[in-house]
Amino acid sequence: MRILISLVSSSTATGLHLPSLSRRLHTKISPFSTLIHHKPSPAMAASEDSLRRALAEKQSSIESQGNTVRALKASNAEKATVDEAIEKLNALKLDKSVMEKQLQATVNGSGPDGSVNKEAFRQAVVNTLERRLFYIPSFKIYRGVAGLYDYGPPGCAVKSNVLSFWRQHFVLEENMLEVDCPCVTPEVVLKASGHVDKFTDLMVKDEKTGTCYRADHLLKDFCNEKIQKDLSISAEKAAELKHVLAILDDLSAEELGAKIKEYGITAPDTKNPLSDPYPFNLMFQTSIGPSGLSPGYMRPETAQGIFVNFKDLYYYNGNKLPFAAAQIGQAFRNEISPRQGLLRVREFTLAEIEHFVDPEYKSHPKYSEVADLEFLMFPRELQISAQSAKKIQLGEAVSKGIVNNETLGYFIGRVYLFLTRLGIDKDRLRFRQHLANEMAHYAADCWDAEIESSYGWIECVGIADRSAYDLHAHSEKSGVPLVAHEKFSEPKEVEKLVIASVKKELGLAFKGNQKKVVEALEAMNEKEALDMKASLETKGEVEFYVCTLGENVTIKKNMVSISKEKKKEHQRTFTPSVIEPSFGIGRIIYCLYEHSFYMRPSKAGDEQLNVFRFPPLVAPIKCTVFPLVQNQQYEDVAKIISKSLTAAGISHKIDITGTSIGKRYARTDELGVPFAITVDSISSVTIRERDSKDQIRVDVEEAAPVVKSVTDGHKTWADVWANFPHHSSGPVED
Amino acid sequence: MRILISLVSSSTATGLHLPSLSRRLHTKISPFSTLIHHKPSPAMAASEDSLRRALAEKQSSIESQGNTVRALKASNAEKATVDEAIEKLNALKLDKSVMEKQLQATVNGSGPDGSVNKEAFRQAVVNTLERRLFYIPSFKIYRGVAGLYDYGPPGCAVKSNVLSFWRQHFVLEENMLEVDCPCVTPEVVLKASGHVDKFTDLMVKDEKTGTCYRADHLLKDFCNEKIQKDLSISAEKAAELKHVLAILDDLSAEELGAKIKEYGITAPDTKNPLSDPYPFNLMFQTSIGPSGLSPGYMRPETAQGIFVNFKDLYYYNGNKLPFAAAQIGQAFRNEISPRQGLLRVREFTLAEIEHFVDPEYKSHPKYSEVADLEFLMFPRELQISAQSAKKIQLGEAVSKGIVNNETLGYFIGRVYLFLTRLGIDKDRLRFRQHLANEMAHYAADCWDAEIESSYGWIECVGIADRSAYDLHAHSEKSGVPLVAHEKFSEPKEVEKLVIASVKKELGLAFKGNQKKVVEALEAMNEKEALDMKASLETKGEVEFYVCTLGENVTIKKNMVSISKEKKKEHQRTFTPSVIEPSFGIGRIIYCLYEHSFYMRPSKAGDEQLNVFRFPPLVAPIKCTVFPLVQNQQYEDVAKIISKSLTAAGISHKIDITGTSIGKRYARTDELGVPFAITVDSISSVTIRERDSKDQIRVDVEEAAPVVKSVTDGHKTWADVWANFPHHSSGPVED
Repeated sequence: MRILISLVSSSTATGLHLPSLSRRLHTKISPFSTLIHHKPSPAMAASEDSLRRALAEKQSSIESQGNTVRALKASNAEKATVDEAIEKLNALKLDKSVMEKQLQATVNGSGPDGSVNKEAFRQAVVNTLERRLFYIPSFKIYRGVAGLYDYGPPGCAVKSNVLSFWRQHFVLEENMLEVDCPCVTPEVVLKASGHVDKFTDLMVKDEKTGTCYRADHLLKDFCNEKIQKDLSISAEKAAELKHVLAILDDLSAEELGAKIKEYGITAPDTKNPLSDPYPFNLMFQTSIGPSGLSPGYMRPETAQGIFVNFKDLYYYNGNKLPFAAAQIGQAFRNEISPRQGLLRVREFTLAEIEHFVDPEYKSHPKYSEVADLEFLMFPRELQISAQSAKKIQLGEAVSKGIVNNETLGYFIGRVYLFLTRLGIDKDRLRFRQHLANEMAHYAADCWDAEIESSYGWIECVGIADRSAYDLHAHSEKSGVPLVAHEKFSEPKEVEKLVIASVKKELGLAFKGNQKKVVEALEAMNEKEALDMKASLETKGEVEFYVCTLGENVTIKKNMVSISKEKKKEHQRTFTPSVIEPSFGIGRIIYCLYEHSFYMRPSKAGDEQLNVFRFPPLVAPIKCTVFPLVQNQQYEDVAKIISKSLTAAGISHKIDITGTSIGKRYARTDELGVPFAITVDSISSVTIRERDSKDQIRVDVEEAAPVVKSVTDGHKTWADVWANFPHHSSGPVED
Repeated sequence: MRILISLVSSSTATGLHLPSLSRRLHTKISPFSTLIHHKPSPAMAASEDSLRRALAEKQSSIESQGNTVRALKASNAEKATVDEAIEKLNALKLDKSVMEKQLQATVNGSGPDGSVNKEAFRQAVVNTLERRLFYIPSFKIYRGVAGLYDYGPPGCAVKSNVLSFWRQHFVLEENMLEVDCPCVTPEVVLKASGHVDKFTDLMVKDEKTGTCYRADHLLKDFCNEKIQKDLSISAEKAAELKHVLAILDDLSAEELGAKIKEYGITAPDTKNPLSDPYPFNLMFQTSIGPSGLSPGYMRPETAQGIFVNFKDLYYYNGNKLPFAAAQIGQAFRNEISPRQGLLRVREFTLAEIEHFVDPEYKSHPKYSEVADLEFLMFPRELQISAQSAKKIQLGEAVSKGIVNNETLGYFIGRVYLFLTRLGIDKDRLRFRQHLANEMAHYAADCWDAEIESSYGWIECVGIADRSAYDLHAHSEKSGVPLVAHEKFSEPKEVEKLVIASVKKELGLAFKGNQKKVVEALEAMNEKEALDMKASLETKGEVEFYVCTLGENVTIKKNMVSISKEKKKEHQRTFTPSVIEPSFGIGRIIYCLYEHSFYMRPSKAGDEQLNVFRFPPLVAPIKCTVFPLVQNQQYEDVAKIISKSLTAAGISHKIDITGTSIGKRYARTDELGVPFAITVDSISSVTIRERDSKDQIRVDVEEAAPVVKSVTDGHKTWADVWANFPHHSSGPVED
């Protein structure tokens, strides 16, 4: 006998269990999806289009004028006439070349050398990062492995600072329940979540060498290359290629294969023909235990570890909603052919929050603290109408229903604060809403925090209202109900549908098939059951389709009793919704590097020096200590200051080499060290701020406390600048 | 032509490249090796031995007296005579049962119910830990996976506190270079390190069901069971079984198999026969990239990531030695049949330090800071002579050569400070030196920090001087020299051996074998070369064994020239030694749980309450805030205090349920929360210390600062106890 709660139709419920995830599953893990969004502004698109048309016209004018010239020459026309025609032809060619330059500039975005500048900027950043060991390709002495990187000392410190701030800003501030689950995950868990069947990318193979490529990448590269470098293609062709780029993520294996054939795309390295696209599962597979019979995977995200523990966590929280659980940890994705440096890697750190909430009460008590924030948002409507992101007040976006609910809005606001406090430039940060076709069918709403970098707009945080999907999936697979209860202040009377099958009669009638018939009867939704009840009452029997048998059976009146009963209920049982902010830590850090990097001329003006303008919160080393010259007394003072910095828990570096102070500053500017203490006397020292290069003079004993106050955020540099004597940088900087 | 530096013999050098690692490799990763050391104290062993002998004698007395009784009865002896004989027999049986109890007590260690007590204590700890979600078996709703555990909120906080303290105590204090490398590791790296070939355990299979067991575990269980439960075995048999336990780690597959056969050991679950033991590689294997052609493994330790980066790290450190690199991260080991809860798991967090040092200068500048420490040490000699660990002053151990060098000693001292500051009981912590046969052949010295728990003495930190082994292995395999240089202040004149083979003559004489002969000639060490030189000068030719050919060849004077040349050298090039402290974080945390756990009666005396006496540094939550009764004003005060605690970065929990204050204290004592703020007025509040249950009274505004000062270690509870009014616990505790 099964009792259906009257207001929930079973078809809605089962809808949640049949995810048509396909490649859509990726949208769950925001840091993974397509990196660069091709959404040209309408003005730009129009100008590109008319330029291509004008260029095509100019080309045909040139051809016809060429014919004219040839005809004149053939007919031995007068020299003056021929010269005039040639002059006209040359003028047309000149026009064409001007138009080509304009078109080139337009397709490259920001001026004729836009992409070149981006490339050069990226190279400067990446060179500095690799040279100073922020990161390096892993296993370099063995020629490395694509998509695997090591963080060296400064990168490791930056990561550790970002993660501690994450813990402070989210876990501590919201009293979240942090958990720490293994990376090795048994197959059943990832079968339930859909990853085993659907976490794939489409791959093609070089038919001769067997080298593998991501099918969509090849198509994307082909389209981009054509649009950006082939100025002769027609406006129609350009529009077609752009359309392909826009729908790339939605193409099936067959459609992708057809496009690759149509465009004649071959293997990039060998020009060999390519196989048809086929799905490749992106999880690293392994085997748990010695038997070889228990397949396992390295987790592709940390979230599942939280979902499977829902019951214990709910209990730990005193059986109360809402609450959030959080996890920081490694995730793994066996990319087909990783590229784009730190942005697409095979192993990465995720920080994920699962905020469990009653689907009927998605308000948030601290929502008012973020409602006044205003920042770049890119709602669905603006994307569809080909407009740009614009500044919207968060409270307005929620009240107008652009953002689905308060809790989702609250997290969007908190993510904005998190990223900007780390040093992400707010003008190169936008929150982009997923388009309807981009979102998993079960999701209520989904926004990505995208950061603009030299690679385009990068998804760094995904904030999704995933409704009850994940808990449902694991309840179903494990048989353990992952539900919450709301106790009513006083019992409520509810009407319930009761379907009671009479096993004895059913057994006589259906024998071995009895179980399937019973299950089908009990699975009827309210309308089906009431229709059957009516038919049985009027006709005494009814034809009933049992899908597990694939045929109709005859149900008689004595086989089932269907009724609606009034019951007093003391609580409501439901599957919580989950709102999931998911942070790709490595991507955030890479974007932070780009946003923090700048160059300035050396004092002598003979070279460009690199600087990272990290806020103290993020800086890998907070402070350096330099004796101005090599001198035992100064070194002793430096060591005393170093000891007090260690005691205060401030990471620092002492440099007693005889190198010029200017060179030592330059070296540490490149590591983004915000403050430098220079020992130039035994009683007082100078403290220099990295970006302004301003210096103050403080007593030796004050050096560590002053640096501590500005690095832990209790004071700003402006505060200390106002309170201490200034030091002219002249003699010291040399 | 090859130039050998005169002082390094080639055989020593190549010796490093031929590791006979075998199962010895495990000793590298200290947290993995055998958990429980069977080193009974000599007194105890002696008493057990004599008890067994006495028991055997008693048994034979009983048998002979039994015969006497039977004989008397058969000969119809007088009743009084028979009765007297029976009485004597009963007296003997009574003696025997007393002796059995004594023996039982002796073999169980600490009294007749010693093992039962340990078991009960462990159950109490583990129950509390699991119930309060310090940890839980992973994927529980899917019935879990052996050897995988999740840390729930308090466990996760403890881990995070332990790791931050580790970073503070080691990385920051010593300016170590922290790195962060991927878990996914290509085969070549682990081939070089020896793990692919040798990182195995011996496994046996149930011949009928295929279930796998660790061969040494079965043998160990058999021996322990026999010794502890079978009181009838002879003293000789007991000694034999103990010997087997002692040499267990050194048995080959054949020897293990023979013992299993000899003792008739069968599969524990089915009693089926077992297969012969064979090696099972303990690494989780996977495949990198889509081709299926690049095998990879989940790293079994973090150290290799540091070794392969030596060159870059050395450069980062200004090409100076010594320096240390450190890494915290997940490591993986596909255990055959994990048991012992958190102590033997398939995925765990390691924190490893690789301190690179010139092998000729192993002093340490900060050694004097730890030299006076005195703690339990268990040097090789004490173990061999079956004595116990004893208190030794570290400085003395180093100066007497018990500890190989100052740097190793320095780290032993730092590890001692680290563990005891976390709350490990110094009386249940010892540093045990590896026996010669336990140590890898290349290691100079190795000490394990062992912590006593209910499972016995657990290796939690390994501190090894691994000499140049790892850097050599990767230099060899990658072809990239991983070396350091010492620049001489002025050039030094050194004598070098030069072996110049005359290719033309050798070619004529040996044709296709020429290469092998040349290699053998150039591989001679100094003595061999000089002997050859002398022979050639006197006899003109010499017989020379070429091992790669497996035969003697005749070398003539014109084929090779051997000389010693003087050269000026500006620097010395060498492979640094590495001293490696390696921390099994999960094991340390588990032992900390046992050392911190105690029970005390509730106020009413009707139940035993659980308490973890974590120091504030470790406590998952530093403070709770309780309104004494449910009351809006008190709740408002509680929220104000909660806000200021958040601002001060102090993790805390606010509990506004109406539960009695005593119950709320008990709940948080079980989480090891050191301080509780109870709001019982709107102007001032009480702060209670967990272990003493003492309470002070402070103003509302002072509550957060006072808690901060005692949790961040600036003050002790004694300090604040001396400075604030005391509060009688009577009314509040109820």
